[in-house]
Amino acid sequence: MSMRTHYCGQTTEAALDQTVSLCGWVHRRRDHGGVIFIDLRDREGLVQVVCAPEQAEVFAAAETVRNEFCLRITGVVRNRPEGTVNSNLKSGKIEVLCQVLEVLNASVTPPFQLDDDNLSETTRLTHRVLDLRRPQMQNNLRLRHKVTMEVRRYLDALGFIDVETPMLTKSTPEGARDYLVPSRVNAGQFFALPQSPQLFKQLLMVANFDRYYQITKCFRDEDLRADRQPEFTQIDCETSFMSEQEIRDLFEDMIRLIFKNCLSVDLDSQFPVMDYSTAMGMYGSDKPDMRVKLEFTELTSVMKDVDFKVFSGAANMVGGRVVGLRVPGGGAMPRSEIDAYTQFVSIYGAKGLAYIKVNDKAAGREGLQSPIVKNLHDAALAQIIELTGAQNGDLIFFGADKAKVVNDAIGALRVKIGHSDFGKSNGLFENVWKPLWVVDFPMFEYDEDSARWFACHHPFTAPKDGHEELLETDPGNCIAKAYDLVLNGWEMGGGSIRIHKADVQSKVFRALNIDAEEAQLKFGFLLDALQYGAPPHGGLAFGLDRIVTMMAGAESIRDVIAFPKTQRAQCLLTQAPSGVDEKQLRELHIRLRATEPVVKA
Amino acid sequence: MSMRTHYCGQTTEAALDQTVSLCGWVHRRRDHGGVIFIDLRDREGLVQVVCAPEQAEVFAAAETVRNEFCLRITGVVRNRPEGTVNSNLKSGKIEVLCQVLEVLNASVTPPFQLDDDNLSETTRLTHRVLDLRRPQMQNNLRLRHKVTMEVRRYLDALGFIDVETPMLTKSTPEGARDYLVPSRVNAGQFFALPQSPQLFKQLLMVANFDRYYQITKCFRDEDLRADRQPEFTQIDCETSFMSEQEIRDLFEDMIRLIFKNCLSVDLDSQFPVMDYSTAMGMYGSDKPDMRVKLEFTELTSVMKDVDFKVFSGAANMVGGRVVGLRVPGGGAMPRSEIDAYTQFVSIYGAKGLAYIKVNDKAAGREGLQSPIVKNLHDAALAQIIELTGAQNGDLIFFGADKAKVVNDAIGALRVKIGHSDFGKSNGLFENVWKPLWVVDFPMFEYDEDSARWFACHHPFTAPKDGHEELLETDPGNCIAKAYDLVLNGWEMGGGSIRIHKADVQSKVFRALNIDAEEAQLKFGFLLDALQYGAPPHGGLAFGLDRIVTMMAGAESIRDVIAFPKTQRAQCLLTQAPSGVDEKQLRELHIRLRATEPVVKA
Repeated sequence: MSMRTHYCGQTTEAALDQTVSLCGWVHRRRDHGGVIFIDLRDREGLVQVVCAPEQAEVFAAAETVRNEFCLRITGVVRNRPEGTVNSNLKSGKIEVLCQVLEVLNASVTPPFQLDDDNLSETTRLTHRVLDLRRPQMQNNLRLRHKVTMEVRRYLDALGFIDVETPMLTKSTPEGARDYLVPSRVNAGQFFALPQSPQLFKQLLMVANFDRYYQITKCFRDEDLRADRQPEFTQIDCETSFMSEQEIRDLFEDMIRLIFKNCLSVDLDSQFPVMDYSTAMGMYGSDKPDMRVKLEFTELTSVMKDVDFKVFSGAANMVGGRVVGLRVPGGGAMPRSEIDAYTQFVSIYGAKGLAYIKVNDKAAGREGLQSPIVKNLHDAALAQIIELTGAQNGDLIFFGADKAKVVNDAIGALRVKIGHSDFGKSNGLFENVWKPLWVVDFPMFEYDEDSARWFACHHPFTAPKDGHEELLETDPGNCIAKAYDLVLNGWEMGGGSIRIHKADVQSKVFRALNIDAEEAQLKFGFLLDALQYGAPPHGGLAFGLDRIVTMMAGAESIRDVIAFPKTQRAQCLLTQAPSGVDEKQLRELHIRLRATEPVVKA
Repeated sequence: MSMRTHYCGQTTEAALDQTVSLCGWVHRRRDHGGVIFIDLRDREGLVQVVCAPEQAEVFAAAETVRNEFCLRITGVVRNRPEGTVNSNLKSGKIEVLCQVLEVLNASVTPPFQLDDDNLSETTRLTHRVLDLRRPQMQNNLRLRHKVTMEVRRYLDALGFIDVETPMLTKSTPEGARDYLVPSRVNAGQFFALPQSPQLFKQLLMVANFDRYYQITKCFRDEDLRADRQPEFTQIDCETSFMSEQEIRDLFEDMIRLIFKNCLSVDLDSQFPVMDYSTAMGMYGSDKPDMRVKLEFTELTSVMKDVDFKVFSGAANMVGGRVVGLRVPGGGAMPRSEIDAYTQFVSIYGAKGLAYIKVNDKAAGREGLQSPIVKNLHDAALAQIIELTGAQNGDLIFFGADKAKVVNDAIGALRVKIGHSDFGKSNGLFENVWKPLWVVDFPMFEYDEDSARWFACHHPFTAPKDGHEELLETDPGNCIAKAYDLVLNGWEMGGGSIRIHKADVQSKVFRALNIDAEEAQLKFGFLLDALQYGAPPHGGLAFGLDRIVTMMAGAESIRDVIAFPKTQRAQCLLTQAPSGVDEKQLRELHIRLRATEPVVKA
């Protein structure tokens, strides 16, 4: 016999006059006119259970129950009395007159009310099990399930095969820091947890699986600034014999499908595509938030000969940049707001925030209000007005520094203004979903400190057709077949066409200062595989945590992960990590460094 | 523009006279009558490509290609000439007259022929990428994908929610050995990789997710005897408010569905159910291979007073057991085969293998052929014949020792004989799928060495209703609400109803010699969660690797895992595990033990 006939939240007038059995938790209990009403909750929602004094045994039991007691009740479904219908509930037209009430499990008093929205993160993560009972967390994790199921259905229908790749794999200290796992059987050796299945999925392409996907955990032992987790989940995909355009189209369709089926949202029928240099030029970012209706104006060449040293210095510096950011209607912005922005851009290394208020274009220099106007010659001022397209009442902010500082500072300022009350009330922010493909990334980035080139994407990314030569002659101008999908300023995923020829792969390793011996040691199995007729292939990976966070409108990826870690990489619920037995360490052939005593948790 | 219009193996007469583009690998190339034929292979199969001398450029290119070159060809589909149709291929009625041949990537000569079936495991795992190109491995991994997809669809339709549980979790040194992960941020502390998501899935039930599943990696650092892997995959499921019977029915349906949809096999419409004690009694195993038509006959009480000390000694020993195994027609078994079985049972600790050949029942003692007959009195002999139901021409093997030795040895012998040529030709083996539920396991097993009780399933398993008292008074007779699904002698999965009351859980911990302090330290978060109205819940986990191995008819789980480890827990392809930089160890606050130098891989 079943413990229940219906979910609480799905008990409706369809069951009128039927005897039903329900299981769930006491969400609220109240006495009213000598009758006890229990709102019984399960994952589908609430139902009202009526315990009348005529049913003496039920009534006596109902008097003992408290919030979060787990009950099984049997009763008859009846219409609620007129005037007490609750249209917020699916079960709101009915109530259940209780005939049997069984306490399946009592509950001590919870440390907080489940409907308290002002809980600290520490409280929530320490009592995660109760936190997860809250409707928002229930919805978030169900949305996550729905998204993954949609992804699986879509990819399965297109012939993608879910192949599991190893969790215990080889350490290749490139990029992020590895999580290591000491080997017991092979003394002194270590596995690494995968930062991504990148190389394995490429090997699967060489092995003729043609279309692969996996929704899988990846690991990076980084400092958990911002919204990162030690373990995170990727929707990882790879295909053979498809062009970049075909790959993008296929996954663009997937994202559209997810939004349609999970949120009933229609994304653009074709996502706009922008190359990296345009994105950096117009927005100072390779993941621009396209909801913000503000753009950079390039002023570097205009500022080369002005008296204002901040501008001319940056304009003449190697790798310097000067931009304007025209804010329509910004002339009305109070001084305090401008000061706040000046403070804000300093976070990104900007030494100040010059601006001009355009009071009256027709009045020339006199119509422009700014401390810096006196140090800009007429031609420069005219150019500023013309190139930014500024109108009376506008304000123009300026960034002038090394390009990176300008991009970071003014790029962040652009978003900040867009999302501000000012931006929203002045039409500078469009509250819609704005996907964007960013393409044609550079192959390499030069790092001044280590005086070497690094891969922008990863070392397995193919150069654009015709750019193979540049790998050796001019790495800085070598463009990659790499692409990112950006949504509302977040990178949702990214990928590339991969190198499928061993000689090209070796050239890239050389450009990255990885000599033949090191390449063989670290990536020999890849170079070897490429020799056996590796097919042209490419793919991408989406960050599932981020996608679901965005879709759920959650504040943090921790809100879409059942059991997340804190920023100190700890699980407050289980107290992981913890000390371990000396015996365990001995078996693994390791010991703690002297300064760290074994703390037995 | 797409690189291909069809998969090679799916190009058929439906595309007759059309120009097609195909991508794939040269499976075989042969010159025949001045024409070059290329069997081009992709994951869907082969197609015949014809390179005629009239197409000079194509022909010249075709002359240069070798096995495993990766090609793109464009050509026209035409009927094969009469008499050359290959009915083994989906594309066997047609061929493609090549007009453009593009070598996408050359291949060096592979280290072995892809159709060589006699490769060593070492060769296959070292060159895993090429090994994976072989049709059997392609089929195995596609079957695996199909199985998981069927599971997901089935569970999703029933409202199960896929929730990811942590990979970096808390070490609880119970059961198998943990894989540990040193924490960088929390010096001297360690994460453990999960042996299973057991506690997290129970917490999800307490958190009102109601129905959970996950197909997830689990980790056990055990010696890899038999067919084990350091990381393996579980189909992990849990539900609230369902009875054991309901849970078994639900997952029995799932298994039936998988076999139907993936193998077109109809399993029994209702799986038989057998309790643990019956299984041990009749087959000496809790995972009996029901294809084998042989059963134990219990003879312990019969042998208490016989002269033959081996039998009477075992029969009178505490925990001793004597059984017969009647082999119909076994009288015809040659002495050499019996000797081989005697050798075989010694592996399981049996000190010998007594037997009786039943030549002529009617002749009494004289009709029984065996060295031991003279030491058995008439009543015992009559009982043996009667209880085993032996007929003339049969052979009866005997096991007499501690019950464990008898069960292991005669249980293995039973399977061995069933699977032997003798067994198969004498109707002792039925070559069908034979699922079986084994239920009512004991809660505890006593370990003589450590003189304490261990949990048969795990410490979170609920005792049968009415057995709660026995936890304290008679643990050995306490039966658990645990169940295993067995198929053809393999455990496919198992589970239980869990303890949902904190006081019962504490009693079980006490029975296991885990005191309150230790319980709080290791499982405090579970005990805590149980206090907040934990619902009745239960579930089970299936071993995906094993299920797919069985379904694929593979010899080893390594044949259904893309990148498995060897028995020494090494990946021959990537050379993991490997030495790591001293810097990495320092960051993790560990050092190698003195005897093990840092070996930089």
